[in-house]
Amino acid sequence: MAAVNEKVYDFDAATYTASTGNGTWSAEIHDGWDFAGLPNGGYLMALAVRAMLGELSRNDPLVVSAHFLSPASAGPAEISVQSIREGRRHTSATASLRQGEKEIARLLGTFGELVWNSPAYLRAEPPALPPPDECELPRPVDGFEPPPITRRVELRLLPEHAGFAYGDPPGVAEVSGWARFADGRPADTASLLLFADALPPAVFNAGLPLGWVPTIEMTVQIRKRPSPGWLRSRFITRLVAGGYLEEDGEIWDSEDDLVALSRQLALSPSPLKDRK
Amino acid sequence: MAAVNEKVYDFDAATYTASTGNGTWSAEIHDGWDFAGLPNGGYLMALAVRAMLGELSRNDPLVVSAHFLSPASAGPAEISVQSIREGRRHTSATASLRQGEKEIARLLGTFGELVWNSPAYLRAEPPALPPPDECELPRPVDGFEPPPITRRVELRLLPEHAGFAYGDPPGVAEVSGWARFADGRPADTASLLLFADALPPAVFNAGLPLGWVPTIEMTVQIRKRPSPGWLRSRFITRLVAGGYLEEDGEIWDSEDDLVALSRQLALSPSPLKDRK
Repeated sequence: MAAVNEKVYDFDAATYTASTGNGTWSAEIHDGWDFAGLPNGGYLMALAVRAMLGELSRNDPLVVSAHFLSPASAGPAEISVQSIREGRRHTSATASLRQGEKEIARLLGTFGELVWNSPAYLRAEPPALPPPDECELPRPVDGFEPPPITRRVELRLLPEHAGFAYGDPPGVAEVSGWARFADGRPADTASLLLFADALPPAVFNAGLPLGWVPTIEMTVQIRKRPSPGWLRSRFITRLVAGGYLEEDGEIWDSEDDLVALSRQLALSPSPLKDRK
Repeated sequence: MAAVNEKVYDFDAATYTASTGNGTWSAEIHDGWDFAGLPNGGYLMALAVRAMLGELSRNDPLVVSAHFLSPASAGPAEISVQSIREGRRHTSATASLRQGEKEIARLLGTFGELVWNSPAYLRAEPPALPPPDECELPRPVDGFEPPPITRRVELRLLPEHAGFAYGDPPGVAEVSGWARFADGRPADTASLLLFADALPPAVFNAGLPLGWVPTIEMTVQIRKRPSPGWLRSRFITRLVAGGYLEEDGEIWDSEDDLVALSRQLALSPSPLKDRK
């Protein structure tokens, strides 16, 4: 998506992919979409999905799962897309995101064309948030500056959910806040994969020791092409046990519509300093 | 799993897979695990996962996604398993379930060994249910007998959630109930994939016209090897719009532990008689 004045938005540059034939797409993993040097999983998913959309000639991801296999780093990458089934309404495909010999992530998704209509049934509400300018900016945590991704994605956290940054977590594994691209790019369905992984982990507010929470798998359902403006998200974790936790997310747009549902499986927090 | 007296449980017979070399496993999709002649998606996932566990020499699925591509039918099937990455702790793999030339489902999963410990954090509760003998057996709906799968999996629904069968849905898309194998087989982690798809759709209680709800995609996270006894499940749908709905599930075991979380994307209900 290029603006009228030919400005290229950061997200479009960072997810630019070019076909090199036979389902293979070249890409460049950009700096600045990371946490402690490790590119954000949602960013990597969006990058791979952009190649999938290009290869499959579909406009919207409907549901995509990514299993994360090795840590990525800034630099060249390659995405191989393989269509599995092309139907009238849906196309399913897999993709492999690689850097050199290393496979970073494997994806499986179903794609189509989203046409919104008034819900036949809805039993959920967007998170109740004060206006963005009464919410909290990301702050340093445990000696770590807010991650670079927070310069690309503007975040405004519900003040009660920013407690982890002051050593005063509310004791409930929940994080809600506003989010939008810092450079004014409107969100589209592919970018919702990024927004599904852009807030601090909900488990940071649980009252457990803070730590690194590597994503093993993330699945995102996209339900609507988001309307322009701030997005509101709520992420919760119910269970931390046996070395794993899940995190469920909802993303709502400026028209109060539920545009995406996410869920990830991650490892339980391990000390941040191990990655410093 | 065979009982001491060499009795083979129904589920073990119905998910029996045999390696034919090179990652390929032969199987037989059994009658009697279906709804209106269409084998249950959770059963098909469990069948494919059994081949994946065999091929990968892992004991537990941790998180598995299946995208359903074509309707299955009772009869021979083949599962090709491909390991993607084998780490110390986790193995990731894809599988393709086929019948002849037709691909039924593509799966992507991460496997390992589940070791339960007391939760470091838990904020969820099992559904509040009266004892099984005070709950409701499955009943005919709209002229349809309870599906054959309800003879394999015993269900006892929360009475308030059985309203759809009487034309008196509560107006909230939720279904809770007890479930266990009818022949006494204990549940294990692979069978939780079946239990994640064994109750009537939550949307049946929304007050919308009842209908066929084909699953497009289902992802299940397994968190614990279930303790013996009845399982309790709760399934909810938040949003029916644009032709799609999601269904989220929790499965709890007899020790009050949250053993699995499921989520599916399905098509909005279409009239049942179209499948009669």
